[in-house]
Amino acid sequence: MAKTLIVGSVAFDAIETPQHKTEKIIGGAGTYICLAASYFTNPSIVAVVGGDFPKEYIEKLQRRGVHTEGVQIKPNEKTFFWSGKYFDNMNQRETLVTELNVLGNFDPILPDSYKDAEFVMLGNLSPQVQRRVIEQLPQKPKLVVLDTMDFWIDCALEELLKTLRMIDVIVINEEEARHLSGEYGLPQAARKIQTMGPRYVIIKKGSHGALLFGEGKVFSAPALLLEEVIDPTGAGDTFAGGFTGYLAQRNATDFETMKSAVIVGSAMASFTVEAMGTQAIENLSQEQISARVQEFRDITSFAI
Amino acid sequence: MAKTLIVGSVAFDAIETPQHKTEKIIGGAGTYICLAASYFTNPSIVAVVGGDFPKEYIEKLQRRGVHTEGVQIKPNEKTFFWSGKYFDNMNQRETLVTELNVLGNFDPILPDSYKDAEFVMLGNLSPQVQRRVIEQLPQKPKLVVLDTMDFWIDCALEELLKTLRMIDVIVINEEEARHLSGEYGLPQAARKIQTMGPRYVIIKKGSHGALLFGEGKVFSAPALLLEEVIDPTGAGDTFAGGFTGYLAQRNATDFETMKSAVIVGSAMASFTVEAMGTQAIENLSQEQISARVQEFRDITSFAI
Repeated sequence: MAKTLIVGSVAFDAIETPQHKTEKIIGGAGTYICLAASYFTNPSIVAVVGGDFPKEYIEKLQRRGVHTEGVQIKPNEKTFFWSGKYFDNMNQRETLVTELNVLGNFDPILPDSYKDAEFVMLGNLSPQVQRRVIEQLPQKPKLVVLDTMDFWIDCALEELLKTLRMIDVIVINEEEARHLSGEYGLPQAARKIQTMGPRYVIIKKGSHGALLFGEGKVFSAPALLLEEVIDPTGAGDTFAGGFTGYLAQRNATDFETMKSAVIVGSAMASFTVEAMGTQAIENLSQEQISARVQEFRDITSFAI
Repeated sequence: MAKTLIVGSVAFDAIETPQHKTEKIIGGAGTYICLAASYFTNPSIVAVVGGDFPKEYIEKLQRRGVHTEGVQIKPNEKTFFWSGKYFDNMNQRETLVTELNVLGNFDPILPDSYKDAEFVMLGNLSPQVQRRVIEQLPQKPKLVVLDTMDFWIDCALEELLKTLRMIDVIVINEEEARHLSGEYGLPQAARKIQTMGPRYVIIKKGSHGALLFGEGKVFSAPALLLEEVIDPTGAGDTFAGGFTGYLAQRNATDFETMKSAVIVGSAMASFTVEAMGTQAIENLSQEQISARVQEFRDITSFAI
């Protein structure tokens, strides 16, 4: 099991779906990534929260074996807060509130104990902050995985391109891949993005699964057909956490292991959407995870 | 190898894509279905053409082992003609011309030699015509597969519902499945459609592959990531032809064989879109087909 470093927001979310509505609950990309990765490795998280962030929320991560020494607490500031509302088919959402608060001037300082990390997952934050994390590592890690979003492609493209040159795997959705590459076809988009730095490109297609491109090969992972999606929040982050955590557990970065990691990430994400917020991934058993992976095997295997 | 009966249009198509444009060429659902099925069985086709339909086009089917005794020729009428235009990403098309001609009062009369068919594929025609084919069979076939489209759901729902009660497998696209069932979620849509008659529901998702529902199980087939889609015309019909033809070749209707048939259908359809019209599926080798099926295996298999 290799050491894993995660950077990402630890925050408050308030989520509204056609059926449910939460108060301010624990959220943030870093939280979902850590929880998902925690089933495979003991990740270290770099993040920042305000004085208003409940100690119990940090303890939630600690109980899952997450190292939280790198979580800065700014007593006189407020925690990042996001609120969003999903529509009928959960395919569209509207952001109701984004309060950057402590994230506005987040400087991710790595404790010394984090610096020998071999697997790094850079959650969706500004490309400058993501780069700042890599730059503090004295040695090149085995694998750096990055998530990003449309906002940074639009507003910080040059910074993003600089950061992309330093990473190995990008996790991105279909529209973002087209946007970043200027290519409509996904094989073409992936190849274009590979020229920007990452050797591996993972394109998430929501309810249509995910694609992994690398080493001139492609892997197509299905999505499970869930009876009901309760809350899609954090599904992408959970995917990234499960993916990175599994590779760290296996301490491998070859294409075959990455294929398995994509399935594990997909399996973890399929849990996340079955309950509001982080609820469904706070307390899974290894048996539940194995059974879910088996479902992926069942729906894709054929003998011909 | 079981006897296979296909009903579907044999017609003229004129196709325009951003890169290419054809004259009036051979087209029609029945043509694509027959060509695809012909690699696995010797299907019999029921169809109608006008006096303007070139003999060479019928010979094209005969050379592939298709029985054409049931193709009615109406010397004084014109063949069905469809013309369409595809836009930028090939995801949208506009119908430029639809001339029903001989199809307007098509009465599909089965030659006696067709009547012991065990596998039947009802291509996209009016549900009345589809039913008329089944009603001429003295014995219930082993498997009846049906394709339909939005137009019949909108304009002939009651007739369609009558026909659905007589079939075993429906092949339908994502939007049509939602439309027919009134359910957004695909598992729910499939279950609802199963209550209408077909025990098996295949939902085609275009570039996202296809889903097979039946016997309480699900199978998810990926789509290949083709470098370039030249012409999507007939992809769905080719899928249906490959699917039905493979089942007839194996003379089996169990879920495991159907999974393989979905892959075979997908493989055949992936050829169709690589050239204009029927060109790519007129002359394939078994090696090419096997290699394509292997690609489906390669992009989905994982070991975990």
